[in-house]
Formats: sequence, structure tokens, C-alpha cells
Amino acid sequence: MTENVYIGSKPVINYVTALVTALQREPKVHVMARGRAISSAVDVVEVCRRSFLKDLQIEDILIGTEQMGDGDDLRNVSTIQIVLNKNA
Amino acid sequence: MTENVYIGSKPVINYVTALVTALQREPKVHVMARGRAISSAVDVVEVCRRSFLKDLQIEDILIGTEQMGDGDDLRNVSTIQIVLNKNA
Repeated sequence: MTENVYIGSKPVINYVTALVTALQREPKVHVMARGRAISSAVDVVEVCRRSFLKDLQIEDILIGTEQMGDGDDLRNVSTIQIVLNKNA
Repeated sequence: MTENVYIGSKPVINYVTALVTALQREPKVHVMARGRAISSAVDVVEVCRRSFLKDLQIEDILIGTEQMGDGDDLRNVSTIQIVLNKNA
């Protein structure tokens, strides 16, 4: 099973806590973010690796584009998906 | 040979132009960014792939941490390196 942790605009430490908790339940966790939160997603993973789970492996990093909104408000938003594995 | 394109706080389109130009000189280009510019780096690569070079391959994405400043101002900054290959 895989769990997803979605990164938003709250302080990085909130998501670090969520990620550490998720990794206690499942060995494999996807960290997902869009737009400006992409930088925070990298911060969350780096803080987690440096301070909490030093043997955490980055299995894959995927980037992409999603269309958001509709009609006149349609716009492209970049995405990131960081696949983490505790047991790799 | 490999060329590096460093992403900063200018408009994304400036770096897209720099990236397209770099890929005309070398098949392999590294897109590098730190901190808040990480989101822009993903934007630059995605715009380049969607609008200019549709067959551009992402060979690797690496994330890390760098220490910046010194003394009392020492802080950790997240980094990203997106390795692009035109010929892969």
C-alpha cells in the first residue's frame, strides 16, 4: 500500500510531522505538490531525511503539468511527486 | 559536455529561453535551483517540454540541501537538479 502526503501552504514542519507519521504506517509514501508548494515539498523531504529518518530513500521524482480551473480561468500548474521508500 | 542553467527570481519565460538556447548547444543540460526558485525550475522544464521541445527527456531529478551564509546566519537551503537530455 502507498500513502500520499499533499503539501500546501502551511509551515513545513506540519508536513514533516505528517510525513513521519505516514512512514510509520507504510514503508512507501508519495509526497505530492503543485505550483508554489513544490519548493516546500522538497524542504519537507530534506528536513525529514536530515533530522528524522536518515536512511529514507528517494525512489523516484516525477514532474508534470495539470490543468486547473475552467473557461477563462484555465491555467497550467506544475506538479511534483516524490516517491519515498523506508525499506529500499 | 554538460551545460548548467541556474534558475532565479526572474520571469519563467527568461529561463525557458536560456534553456532552449543551451539545448541547441549541448544535448544534455542541468537545470539547477535553490529554495523558492525550485518551483520555477519545474515550471521552466514543463513549459519547455510542452511548448518547445516535446521530445525532451528528463534523465534524472536530484534533490539535496546546501548550507548558506555563515556564523549566526547559517541556514539550510533545499536544492534541485533536473538533468535533461535531448537525445535520450
